[in-house]
Amino acid sequence: MRVPRIGISLGDPGGVGPEIILKALESVARPAEAAFVVFGDARVLEAEAARQGLRPEWRRRPDAAAPPAPGLYLRDMPTGLKSLASGSATKENGEASFLFFEAAVEEARRGALDALVTGPVSKSAWDMAGHKWRGHTEYLERFYPEAMMTFWSDRLRVALLSHHLPLREALERVRKDVLTGFLRNLHRALERAKPEEYSLLVAGLNPHAGEDGLMGSEEIREIGPAVEAARAEGIRVDGPFPPDTVYHKALGRADIVVVALTHDQGLIAFKTVSFESGVNATLGMPFIRTSPDHGTAFDIAGRGVADATSMKAAVALALDFARPGAAGSTPR
Amino acid sequence: MRVPRIGISLGDPGGVGPEIILKALESVARPAEAAFVVFGDARVLEAEAARQGLRPEWRRRPDAAAPPAPGLYLRDMPTGLKSLASGSATKENGEASFLFFEAAVEEARRGALDALVTGPVSKSAWDMAGHKWRGHTEYLERFYPEAMMTFWSDRLRVALLSHHLPLREALERVRKDVLTGFLRNLHRALERAKPEEYSLLVAGLNPHAGEDGLMGSEEIREIGPAVEAARAEGIRVDGPFPPDTVYHKALGRADIVVVALTHDQGLIAFKTVSFESGVNATLGMPFIRTSPDHGTAFDIAGRGVADATSMKAAVALALDFARPGAAGSTPR
Repeated sequence: MRVPRIGISLGDPGGVGPEIILKALESVARPAEAAFVVFGDARVLEAEAARQGLRPEWRRRPDAAAPPAPGLYLRDMPTGLKSLASGSATKENGEASFLFFEAAVEEARRGALDALVTGPVSKSAWDMAGHKWRGHTEYLERFYPEAMMTFWSDRLRVALLSHHLPLREALERVRKDVLTGFLRNLHRALERAKPEEYSLLVAGLNPHAGEDGLMGSEEIREIGPAVEAARAEGIRVDGPFPPDTVYHKALGRADIVVVALTHDQGLIAFKTVSFESGVNATLGMPFIRTSPDHGTAFDIAGRGVADATSMKAAVALALDFARPGAAGSTPR
Repeated sequence: MRVPRIGISLGDPGGVGPEIILKALESVARPAEAAFVVFGDARVLEAEAARQGLRPEWRRRPDAAAPPAPGLYLRDMPTGLKSLASGSATKENGEASFLFFEAAVEEARRGALDALVTGPVSKSAWDMAGHKWRGHTEYLERFYPEAMMTFWSDRLRVALLSHHLPLREALERVRKDVLTGFLRNLHRALERAKPEEYSLLVAGLNPHAGEDGLMGSEEIREIGPAVEAARAEGIRVDGPFPPDTVYHKALGRADIVVVALTHDQGLIAFKTVSFESGVNATLGMPFIRTSPDHGTAFDIAGRGVADATSMKAAVALALDFARPGAAGSTPR
């Protein structure tokens, strides 16, 4: 039997990653249904397990060439960390969290994983260790330029046409060809995992979606034509809708993904209703990548009080998208 | 005793205005504390009161030159409407609702009212009647160019630096001098009614508020310096904050008003958490103007099922800002 293969990178050893990953695996993971492979330092994980009073039964990671059997695996990556210091960004922890992530991506890229869940990392720590990526998504975009940043919660689902760009540059991406391509990629990614489950609602750019050109022309010149072009290809998509009501329209609707034209348009809505409880998912790659929508939480790391809700949801979404026959079957 | 004088324009006779105004006056208004003056057609109000089984005791409106005594007043403005047709936009109803509003504004402008509550009107109906204003706020801006659009609910309070402009034009208003002037006006308006009650949080414009200039420079060049300049004047203000978290930070905080740099930045947050239950308030005039944050709801007009929550809140906010010594004492 072929089971989904879910890779999990541990995140920053000094943050809440190890704690919430163990909590999530304890409660969400169904080892009979999937092979979970954690990429991290066994010493860190064992220390955290002891702190939680858990005794997870890890198996040594199997040869990635053979489809693994269901279960819980550990790819032990000893970091030589002198201490298990937590609570702040350090160069050593930055280097470790980058290596865990890099190794997991490498396996996902060659088709040995169907999904990747990433524990929270510290951008400052990566920076100290000489890794200049803004985050996981930017690193993945090096290999998959069409990777899309999306956010998922039980309240709202949002996909961002662009993300870490100055607003003025983001406006330049609101063009018919760019948006049509984005809708096509998003549809393909959703359809591959969840056929006919989703429809897309596209937000406008201007107040009241331009109100027939009275308050901006992008809706008439670019956005509307892109939506029409996508519909002509059979994509279930509608819009543009007034930005200030389309997110409310989608609240609680599990069958709708809103396409936000700028980073903050989508994230103001998402974070206002699902602050740090949602999931950040990168689509448009041969595998899905998910992560909790919060950071390392250095201030509470090592105290056993971290809320694993978002990490549990990240694991669940990864499982959901990694069913056999869905994403991940195309090595690259 | 000098009591606050609250004008209420009836809104479109074919919409839910008459119904929710009667409901609000029945439940919220404290006639011992204020003089409420409804501007509308007695025939319309009486028909609606009969439908609700109410017998409001109206007094003829007193001479505006003399401070009125507390109570419920009607400025009867017979419209000659042939029927009390409701449920759609008509030229006659558009003309009527415009006249009610115009008369109320006229009294407020000459200092006979401390606050104005406006019932919902139909832009299409105004248009049919030859009144080309986008809405109440735009009409008021003719007299008060520095009028500010703000939104209030128990969840969130937001002030918009600009409102009905194409996004690209709105970006041009994100300048130090414009923003400093706006913060000054907003502070003055809040302080006059509620000394030392509020502090302001200013949203950034770019993702992560520009992240030290990596994703846009407006925060460094314009927004930050405007906040500094306002603080130097003694205004309680902080920012710029990342747009996608500042609204969440303000949720449920009755002492915070978020300054949104664009229409949708503020309204995506506001409408997603307080859809059609909030209050739209125009500040920066000698009187405050409030209105429910929803439209005429033609689809349910005349059926007695309209929810008056938002109108009740609009009346309460008007009362709150119209205390003697607060707004409204400067005739213009």
